[in-house]
Amino acid sequence: MSHEPLVRKHSGDFHWEKVDVLKYKQDDTTPFKDVTRQVLFDSQDPPAQLRYFEVSPGGYTTLERHEHVHAVMVIRGHGQCLVGDRAYDIGTHDLVNVPPMTWHQFHAAPEAPLGFLCLVAAERDRPQMPAAGDVPEITKPLRNK
Amino acid sequence: MSHEPLVRKHSGDFHWEKVDVLKYKQDDTTPFKDVTRQVLFDSQDPPAQLRYFEVSPGGYTTLERHEHVHAVMVIRGHGQCLVGDRAYDIGTHDLVNVPPMTWHQFHAAPEAPLGFLCLVAAERDRPQMPAAGDVPEITKPLRNK
Repeated sequence: MSHEPLVRKHSGDFHWEKVDVLKYKQDDTTPFKDVTRQVLFDSQDPPAQLRYFEVSPGGYTTLERHEHVHAVMVIRGHGQCLVGDRAYDIGTHDLVNVPPMTWHQFHAAPEAPLGFLCLVAAERDRPQMPAAGDVPEITKPLRNK
Repeated sequence: MSHEPLVRKHSGDFHWEKVDVLKYKQDDTTPFKDVTRQVLFDSQDPPAQLRYFEVSPGGYTTLERHEHVHAVMVIRGHGQCLVGDRAYDIGTHDLVNVPPMTWHQFHAAPEAPLGFLCLVAAERDRPQMPAAGDVPEITKPLRNK
């Protein structure tokens, strides 16, 4: 059974009752800029977490890939996402599907935050980062936007 | 691997590219009013579905309970939900957790739709409806609001 209260009100500005604003990553060894994480639902059946990430204007998540998939819905602001070999403009209520072992990164617009829900399996593999020499090639679609 | 396209744009008014608007229930034998269903993500790992339900102004979902849980976020409009022995006013970005075997029902406000995301396990039990004589007792919290 879930331990969340039955109803948690949105308390404005994308914060919620009884939901902590967490560091984006447990360690600070990977490159990212101005991202917070909130765990909205931590479910046993399905064995899944629904998280809310918010990237401040001009910020970005870590460029990474992993076996587990991400199911994403933007719910605040706009920006861009890199998924595989393309960059996409994304805005509120757009859906993003990150397949296994696909490089991905989320960027907020310079003037707006990018807030999104992200559904993942409760048990999942650790992200892989690109080797230093790989980064320019991987991010080429983003730079060509 | 998921079969969804990488990015599906919100095409306005809570419709999405390549997402069909479905009947709320496969059969029409249970009482509900003015509800549509859209499956946004159908995932194998986690074995889960993320659906979007929209209740038109004055409409409501079926009053039911089941073993599987619902993790809900309102993303459009406002209304009320009955969960267990209480009714709650809910609005955009509020979170609702429906535990196992808990009576629940979602009502849109008379003047506004109620649109919400609902996360469920891919494999789940069928809903139970109240016996005719049980309905007034179960819905008492809603009528007392």
